[in-house]
Amino acid sequence: MKKIAISIGDLNGIGLEIALKAHKKISKICKPIYCINRLILEWGSAMLGIDIPKEFKIQECGEVFDIKPGENTKEAGESSFDSFITAVALAKSKKVSAIVTLPINKSSWAMAGINYKGHTDALSDLLGCETTMMLGCKDMFVILFTHHIPLKDVSSQISTKKLSKFLIDISKYIDSDKIAVLGLNPHAGDDGVIGSEDKDIQKAIKKANKSIKRDIFQGPLVPDTAFSKENRKEFKYFVCMYHDQGLIPLKALYFDESINVTLNDSIVRTSVDHGTAFDKAYKNSNLSLKSYINAVKEALNH
Amino acid sequence: MKKIAISIGDLNGIGLEIALKAHKKISKICKPIYCINRLILEWGSAMLGIDIPKEFKIQECGEVFDIKPGENTKEAGESSFDSFITAVALAKSKKVSAIVTLPINKSSWAMAGINYKGHTDALSDLLGCETTMMLGCKDMFVILFTHHIPLKDVSSQISTKKLSKFLIDISKYIDSDKIAVLGLNPHAGDDGVIGSEDKDIQKAIKKANKSIKRDIFQGPLVPDTAFSKENRKEFKYFVCMYHDQGLIPLKALYFDESINVTLNDSIVRTSVDHGTAFDKAYKNSNLSLKSYINAVKEALNH
Repeated sequence: MKKIAISIGDLNGIGLEIALKAHKKISKICKPIYCINRLILEWGSAMLGIDIPKEFKIQECGEVFDIKPGENTKEAGESSFDSFITAVALAKSKKVSAIVTLPINKSSWAMAGINYKGHTDALSDLLGCETTMMLGCKDMFVILFTHHIPLKDVSSQISTKKLSKFLIDISKYIDSDKIAVLGLNPHAGDDGVIGSEDKDIQKAIKKANKSIKRDIFQGPLVPDTAFSKENRKEFKYFVCMYHDQGLIPLKALYFDESINVTLNDSIVRTSVDHGTAFDKAYKNSNLSLKSYINAVKEALNH
Repeated sequence: MKKIAISIGDLNGIGLEIALKAHKKISKICKPIYCINRLILEWGSAMLGIDIPKEFKIQECGEVFDIKPGENTKEAGESSFDSFITAVALAKSKKVSAIVTLPINKSSWAMAGINYKGHTDALSDLLGCETTMMLGCKDMFVILFTHHIPLKDVSSQISTKKLSKFLIDISKYIDSDKIAVLGLNPHAGDDGVIGSEDKDIQKAIKKANKSIKRDIFQGPLVPDTAFSKENRKEFKYFVCMYHDQGLIPLKALYFDESINVTLNDSIVRTSVDHGTAFDKAYKNSNLSLKSYINAVKEALNH
């Protein structure tokens, strides 16, 4: 069975509870290695009233600190970063085949002086290569061309050169002979009547297909009908021009199932598609394990 | 039973087939009056091989011309506009309580020298008042603050003054004590970190609620989670800042059920949410009647 490193996330959030509760299920399909300090693990599980499973292999890291459920603390920020870099190190040294990350908290990272916006950003830096975010579930994935930028700035990011390079890059990581590329404007510009970016998108698609010598990319699709049932039967992968163009339909259709995959040249990393849920931390409530389990399954696919 | 005028749409498209096939069902809930020339009706139904139902009341209008399935023609453009203005006239003179429109073709309208972008646009002009587009089905409606403009121009349309006026206006037409208003940027701006428009949206919501003396409007909602199952249980109406913000989730969730409602001070008009489907015209195929029947039902709700 493949070994997977689990980055445990912010210990003031719901990560540990998810890891403990899902262990039985995921250990049937892989050998998880949890990146966590043993004393913290013991303390956290006691707080939750959940026994540590017998075969719960850990990679010790980080320091002991006070778990403060639902709070932003410097110590929790540091600890979650330690867990993450430990998991990345295991992957880089081929001791695991992939890593799965539980949610960190950006504000806690900032309190600890860690100035990345999130895992994807940190990973680009740690690996020294560009990474691309793909989010979704087994039925549908969206790949984001732009991420956390104001909507009004999206248009200026779209150029034939930049987008065609992006498409050529992702064709290396996605094993599919059919990937949809969305237009930008209403009705994909109505043939240039509503904005000109969709024509650049069309050129980028042609250029990318020519370069990779296969007609993988199709579009630009009219955005509003792109995610119809009919289209979702035809396509599994959708390249979206901006954050909400991809995430609105994904979360409308598959809210708690979806996961986050980082595409890059080096290591496989998948993640849950939810946050630390501070409001639910250490309440031993009925948390959904779907996204985490799907993230582990997806990590094993690569 | 209420009388409803049916604007038959572009006769080179699928409108007539839908009207004929759905007549039995809709005549159980209302008295439809079809705005069409009798000879064209007879010819079109013969082409389709569908008998004209016995009680198929028409309001004669327009001229006889050659039906050319799936083609853009000046005559079909003129005829569909004649049907539309006849239906509007019936509503203005209170001979019907509402109108339901089948799809027209913009290019055919243009060929006939009719320079409206569509029904909503024409209706604003004919009624001499502003109209607002609402699209959806019984479970969910989206109301569009901006329509067919390039994505890069959306931001400049958002001001506290303009949006609060818009919200106050729609509160007159929508009978609900809870209407969601979406933010513009990823994560609704992350407290100003990703764009500033979401703060203007917040101010507009406060201003509108204050003016109408009820806290109807809630938001700005984070766009990517706005249409989650949980939120859709809480809200039926969603005010969206741009075309695809509303239409992407609507069509992903309710593709062929949804309809179009024009909100204004004067007459009730609902419409199917699909086009002329020239590729399916006069093939007597298995067309979905859902959107049309829902449009008739919604017209009767007002």
